[in-house]
Amino acid sequence: MARIGIIGSAGRMGQALQAAVVAAGHDLAGGIDRDGDAAALAQASDVLVDFSAPAALEFNLDAAIHAGKPIVVGTTGLEERHHWLIDAAAVSIPVLQTGNTSLGVTLLAHLVQEAAARLGEDWDIEIVETHHRMKVDAPSGTALLLGEAAARGRQVGLKDVAVRGRDGITGQREAGTIGFAALRGGSVAGDHTVHFLADNERLSLSHMAENRGIFAKGAIRAADWLLAREPGRYTMPQVLGLGEERP
Amino acid sequence: MARIGIIGSAGRMGQALQAAVVAAGHDLAGGIDRDGDAAALAQASDVLVDFSAPAALEFNLDAAIHAGKPIVVGTTGLEERHHWLIDAAAVSIPVLQTGNTSLGVTLLAHLVQEAAARLGEDWDIEIVETHHRMKVDAPSGTALLLGEAAARGRQVGLKDVAVRGRDGITGQREAGTIGFAALRGGSVAGDHTVHFLADNERLSLSHMAENRGIFAKGAIRAADWLLAREPGRYTMPQVLGLGEERP
Amino acid sequence: MARIGIIGSAGRMGQALQAAVVAAGHDLAGGIDRDGDAAALAQASDVLVDFSAPAALEFNLDAAIHAGKPIVVGTTGLEERHHWLIDAAAVSIPVLQTGNTSLGVTLLAHLVQEAAARLGEDWDIEIVETHHRMKVDAPSGTALLLGEAAARGRQVGLKDVAVRGRDGITGQREAGTIGFAALRGGSVAGDHTVHFLADNERLSLSHMAENRGIFAKGAIRAADWLLAREPGRYTMPQVLGLGEERP
Amino acid sequence: MARIGIIGSAGRMGQALQAAVVAAGHDLAGGIDRDGDAAALAQASDVLVDFSAPAALEFNLDAAIHAGKPIVVGTTGLEERHHWLIDAAAVSIPVLQTGNTSLGVTLLAHLVQEAAARLGEDWDIEIVETHHRMKVDAPSGTALLLGEAAARGRQVGLKDVAVRGRDGITGQREAGTIGFAALRGGSVAGDHTVHFLADNERLSLSHMAENRGIFAKGAIRAADWLLAREPGRYTMPQVLGLGEERP
Repeated sequence: MARIGIIGSAGRMGQALQAAVVAAGHDLAGGIDRDGDAAALAQASDVLVDFSAPAALEFNLDAAIHAGKPIVVGTTGLEERHHWLIDAAAVSIPVLQTGNTSLGVTLLAHLVQEAAARLGEDWDIEIVETHHRMKVDAPSGTALLLGEAAARGRQVGLKDVAVRGRDGITGQREAGTIGFAALRGGSVAGDHTVHFLADNERLSLSHMAENRGIFAKGAIRAADWLLAREPGRYTMPQVLGLGEERP
Repeated sequence: MARIGIIGSAGRMGQALQAAVVAAGHDLAGGIDRDGDAAALAQASDVLVDFSAPAALEFNLDAAIHAGKPIVVGTTGLEERHHWLIDAAAVSIPVLQTGNTSLGVTLLAHLVQEAAARLGEDWDIEIVETHHRMKVDAPSGTALLLGEAAARGRQVGLKDVAVRGRDGITGQREAGTIGFAALRGGSVAGDHTVHFLADNERLSLSHMAENRGIFAKGAIRAADWLLAREPGRYTMPQVLGLGEERP
Repeated sequence: MARIGIIGSAGRMGQALQAAVVAAGHDLAGGIDRDGDAAALAQASDVLVDFSAPAALEFNLDAAIHAGKPIVVGTTGLEERHHWLIDAAAVSIPVLQTGNTSLGVTLLAHLVQEAAARLGEDWDIEIVETHHRMKVDAPSGTALLLGEAAARGRQVGLKDVAVRGRDGITGQREAGTIGFAALRGGSVAGDHTVHFLADNERLSLSHMAENRGIFAKGAIRAADWLLAREPGRYTMPQVLGLGEERP
Repeated sequence: MARIGIIGSAGRMGQALQAAVVAAGHDLAGGIDRDGDAAALAQASDVLVDFSAPAALEFNLDAAIHAGKPIVVGTTGLEERHHWLIDAAAVSIPVLQTGNTSLGVTLLAHLVQEAAARLGEDWDIEIVETHHRMKVDAPSGTALLLGEAAARGRQVGLKDVAVRGRDGITGQREAGTIGFAALRGGSVAGDHTVHFLADNERLSLSHMAENRGIFAKGAIRAADWLLAREPGRYTMPQVLGLGEERP
């Protein structure tokens, strides 16, 4: 049982994180938002979970460093300089940064990379995802993350092989490409399927999120895992013992 | 048991039709191709099945009319003048013309129309299909046929509401639209799913073809059904007793 | 906009019903539980929704009759004598009783009946459902409701054709039977698929519930629909304009 | 390009093997059946593929040993003494014996083992399969093979955790069990899905066979792979470079 401090505790994700701390049997050391005192929270916590904003990242990392506490960074919209800050912090404390804290998606990406590495180009790869009607972009970030895992397995660059928004007279499918399709509607929290399609057989690897609670749960599990680490920069696959992979 | 004559008996579909005649317990009256004698075949048959070419249609209809035999027209690529010829023939003989002879797809289109008519615009409609890697166009003709069934159920025109090839910054989904997505790979004979996506629930109606034999089987069933009809122009839904619908 | 009174307002379903009243733009006339005054609630409401207990049904119906207000009865565990009470109440007020208030499931049952009526016995029917790990019985009540819809479409009795828990040396599948399979795990709110499996093609009709909110939403829509009815006993299919069917 | 000899060349699988040899760009060295001369075939071949009968195994292995040629054994119904014969042969030639030559199923089993090893018991495992109406047993051998992969990943014995044919009042799902469900109908060549079901998320790994050609194709690929091996006994996972696993 650890004392976990939440930075960015208001809003949907913050509420979910607080619930996930309790559900996992940990202590909620506290939760702060825009005007909160990160330094005090860091002192009172065994580990921090930051889902706030890029602008607050430097201050939050400093608080963690000075208290000597590990930190999970789930904030999105990071730029290159934020990654430098994280690398610098990782010299003195354990830091895990990720754009997707779901354990299921993390494992799916691992399995997709493995399958793509084993199966030849006669297995066509197609990725289809479904999200709620409010989502404004396509394909989803997670679909692209899965596409990158597939491309890594094949040792190619995703941008060289991605085919998106197939429509009209497309000609026959080009071998080695990775197709993306996006469905939108209802309140779907996020379905993703990676199909490997060969002559006369298919392999399909899917993940379905029923709601956003899984992202909070994964973040708390990552925080728990981070407690026992040496200083350094870590990734979600490592939380599942999938250490060999990049993101 | 009927004597069935096949026009366009060479090639994959012709072979499948001949096999389907026998499998259904009928007699194969004969099969002709480009240079065959349609008039003689019509005389020797109780009903004709034509999967040849638009250029041969007029001659084939004439043969059927002179012999007084019903005819199923599954030829694709018909233009407006071919439809006039069919209307003219239907004055004296039963004619069933269709672009899709699968019973399963015919029923699916009926169920989609029914569902679309019952469910309000708060149920988003998305159509996704998968076909083999050799297919050169997207979405499939059958996906469009299903989209038309959905639009008919909602009493709108498909071309006014269709959204195809969703990619990039699309903005939120617009109510009332019908989305299309296409996957390509392997040797998939044809999967189609129509999703109705609402807040917190989904209804999904799917058809999966294992191979092209179903199109031959449906054509032969249509031929059998046509034997007992009066002169007139008929459609596949009527073969299943779904008489009220248009195509 | 109607004033809707909830009987059985505590517990998960009661909370969901109250939220659904507001979400649908109606007024919550009030909510009562075991010790509440149903007679006063009936006076203050345009329509009642009862998800309480069989033991309270007689008193609740009396309250509705005396106030002259329609009532939706979603209480489960009803016995024959409860149905007599409902029939008696339906002489003077509109009553809608149902074991499943989801609009999606209601429509799915209709489509399944339609498909079963159109497709011959060479289309094998298999029903598979998935529910959370806490569910203690199999198959689900909704799976059986779908099986009854399929059996009705084929004009057979479900108990004469149902095959459940297939395992071991079963022999070849018997034509005309309807198979049931149950998966259990996680927090799945309820997935149901009815497969129609023929030679070389399949038709699959599915419903997926993301959470229990859909049952509350359907109950409120039923209440709204009931406002404009004459006295009588009604069913969920009628709310969707599917008047011809029994349950 | 290799010269491949088929033992057991009559029947559906034998025909499929011969077609697969040609499709893969190899030479068909010959095909024999019950009365054929295995010794002569072994001399004329670079590698043998045996899908005949257990009774012929000893003689076939002898032929391979004397000619010094590798052999793929896909014959089913082997008993313990047949495995001793294979072990003995593997001292002097490369032998690959397997009950399932599909590459897709082989990879799926690997991914299932990996996922089961990474995910805790809070992920419930359920395996569902669909086969044609003629299949007489349930669950399928492949479903059991996948269940064994999942059990191996969790380091438990399948027979201790398997739950089959769930029906009636089952009580809540017991943690750590692996459920099996079987659907039967139509002409389905074989669909298998392994679900991992957790709170609020699911991971599903599926294989779908369109027809039996994939088993022939996998056997020929195994034969080709075997050509470059040292004497020893090999398995299908090794053909895909998945050497660490048992079957």
